[in-house]
Amino acid sequence: MKIGVADTTFARVDMGKSAIDQLRACGTGFAIIRRTVPGIKDLPVACKKLIQEEGCEIVIALGMPGPKDKDKQCAHEASTGLIQAQLMTNKHIIEVFVHEDEAKDARELQWLAEQRAKEHAVNAYLMMFRPDDLVRNAGKGLRQGFKDAGPARE
Amino acid sequence: MKIGVADTTFARVDMGKSAIDQLRACGTGFAIIRRTVPGIKDLPVACKKLIQEEGCEIVIALGMPGPKDKDKQCAHEASTGLIQAQLMTNKHIIEVFVHEDEAKDARELQWLAEQRAKEHAVNAYLMMFRPDDLVRNAGKGLRQGFKDAGPARE
Amino acid sequence: MKIGVADTTFARVDMGKSAIDQLRACGTGFAIIRRTVPGIKDLPVACKKLIQEEGCEIVIALGMPGPKDKDKQCAHEASTGLIQAQLMTNKHIIEVFVHEDEAKDARELQWLAEQRAKEHAVNAYLMMFRPDDLVRNAGKGLRQGFKDAGPARE
Amino acid sequence: MKIGVADTTFARVDMGKSAIDQLRACGTGFAIIRRTVPGIKDLPVACKKLIQEEGCEIVIALGMPGPKDKDKQCAHEASTGLIQAQLMTNKHIIEVFVHEDEAKDARELQWLAEQRAKEHAVNAYLMMFRPDDLVRNAGKGLRQGFKDAGPARE
Amino acid sequence: MKIGVADTTFARVDMGKSAIDQLRACGTGFAIIRRTVPGIKDLPVACKKLIQEEGCEIVIALGMPGPKDKDKQCAHEASTGLIQAQLMTNKHIIEVFVHEDEAKDARELQWLAEQRAKEHAVNAYLMMFRPDDLVRNAGKGLRQGFKDAGPARE
Repeated sequence: MKIGVADTTFARVDMGKSAIDQLRACGTGFAIIRRTVPGIKDLPVACKKLIQEEGCEIVIALGMPGPKDKDKQCAHEASTGLIQAQLMTNKHIIEVFVHEDEAKDARELQWLAEQRAKEHAVNAYLMMFRPDDLVRNAGKGLRQGFKDAGPARE
Repeated sequence: MKIGVADTTFARVDMGKSAIDQLRACGTGFAIIRRTVPGIKDLPVACKKLIQEEGCEIVIALGMPGPKDKDKQCAHEASTGLIQAQLMTNKHIIEVFVHEDEAKDARELQWLAEQRAKEHAVNAYLMMFRPDDLVRNAGKGLRQGFKDAGPARE
Repeated sequence: MKIGVADTTFARVDMGKSAIDQLRACGTGFAIIRRTVPGIKDLPVACKKLIQEEGCEIVIALGMPGPKDKDKQCAHEASTGLIQAQLMTNKHIIEVFVHEDEAKDARELQWLAEQRAKEHAVNAYLMMFRPDDLVRNAGKGLRQGFKDAGPARE
Repeated sequence: MKIGVADTTFARVDMGKSAIDQLRACGTGFAIIRRTVPGIKDLPVACKKLIQEEGCEIVIALGMPGPKDKDKQCAHEASTGLIQAQLMTNKHIIEVFVHEDEAKDARELQWLAEQRAKEHAVNAYLMMFRPDDLVRNAGKGLRQGFKDAGPARE
Repeated sequence: MKIGVADTTFARVDMGKSAIDQLRACGTGFAIIRRTVPGIKDLPVACKKLIQEEGCEIVIALGMPGPKDKDKQCAHEASTGLIQAQLMTNKHIIEVFVHEDEAKDARELQWLAEQRAKEHAVNAYLMMFRPDDLVRNAGKGLRQGFKDAGPARE
């Protein structure tokens, strides 16, 4: 079983490495194939190629949109493309985007990017190997990176 | 006949459970298949897989977008993907989204999410088994969760 | 020849009925197939099914988006899906949306919804049976519901 | 060789006629097929049908979005659909939209719509018959209707 | 091996020439095919044709959106189409857009457009011939045109 990891040279943190480290910590029984592209708008086809040309069962797509309006627009276009790529292949692509302005400084940005990449790597692993664990967490208000919102019920 | 239910670990209420409880109360003659994914952007392909790989005739897709601009954007991308998934399969996917900022507090959020999930579960049931009931309600200003707007005519 | 009519229980006016009444007044030689769905985001696949499963040559899709930002977003998603459905089938789907905030009160809302539905039903009829009438009206500033803008030339 | 021309009854200027007049002035060796639809959201499938059902090699799609936010949204949806139609057919569709609020009065609106339609008709002709002329004009800051921006270099 | 270059007559700098000059400086073993279209919304299908009709393995799409809201909207539509074209062909299209308002004057605009075109031409070359170089630069905060943001880690 193959898991794809696609990230960018635009991001200011090596998110692909964090995802791969975490995947390796989750278990065995799968190979990891990594691709790096310039920016997030290059991710959709990179992920689709990982699925259709490399045989990946699931892909983790990591990126870091900048803080400007133009960057937000790029993130929207990339996300739309990632959803399309999934619909064209019937495979999940876990999007892990960290907006540069989510963090208050470079230190927090690095922490957030690595943490979110790792927590979503766990999600990808669970979707492949333990999907019932996700059903058990339905409606729990889980977040990746910053702390969980938690369920609305007291 | 199979009905799919897809929800998220991001939501702060177990909307999938509410939908399933209501479906069971509506009638018999169908099986329910449930999947839970991390967030709403994972729903489109999850629903498409329920249709194409599990043979569901209709799917209920439940999620709870957060209150930030970024979350609104995610909801838009997810909705666009859900419509695309329907067009690619010629099956209905009933979107049940509750925006976290639609409710004034956690208690109302829980009530709203459960209520809307249940009312849309009834809609899914009617679409499958009693489509003429929907025609009879055309233009009636029906809402799910909060109270109906009602028809414009006095 | 079959003409499809799809509308919603969300709308506050029975726009489907107005469209059907007008179609019947336009002429004969066609059957009408009607479907009602909960909301406008359910219209794209409903229209596509009318075309591909029921054999409709053209579909009239009627809906009434609410006044909130969230509703405007839904309208955008529905419109995008309706255009996609047309491109996937090579058939026209005439979108008839009345935004609730286009009218100043319930009475005008009802009038506007019925009037626009009827005028677009005529458009659907002309597209099927008298396409040259449309060419003759190219650039005439025609509107449906409120009065025509008219040509820019004096 | 066939060139398609699609326009609307919503537009306040007969842009289709201007495009056709200009095409005829450009040269011979092609037939023109014209379709008129109610509004710009009807253009994508109209153009796709001109390509796939009538055999057009290229289509000119002309429309005049109104000045309201709702109209801008329609223009966006129509443009997105026109791009999709091109990708589904591997044929160019030259979009010629004049926003009603681009002009200061009805007289200028008429001039602008006719001028832009004509200049884009020339573009369509060049794309079919003299593509190298376009390469020679790469980066020249050309505009259609109002005057050219010109190259950035002095 | 063929590399496609598509640009526009709307742009105010001959970005296609800069990309081609740089590609030639990068290495040999490939042919370059160039197409010029009127505006950025014509790029998606032009790129798809370069891939499917001319056999290009990768395409560089260059354009210069204007400073108005309407121009930003065009850029969004073009970008969405470029991503779609990639997903339909499983080939990369490197988008090189310079927004006219990114530069403070015509001189900087020319510099920025040429510089970004060249740096992305290098990216296209690396994606084809040396993909591991990109992996080595993952998370390095690289930019094209203006200076790199650099990694968040000190």
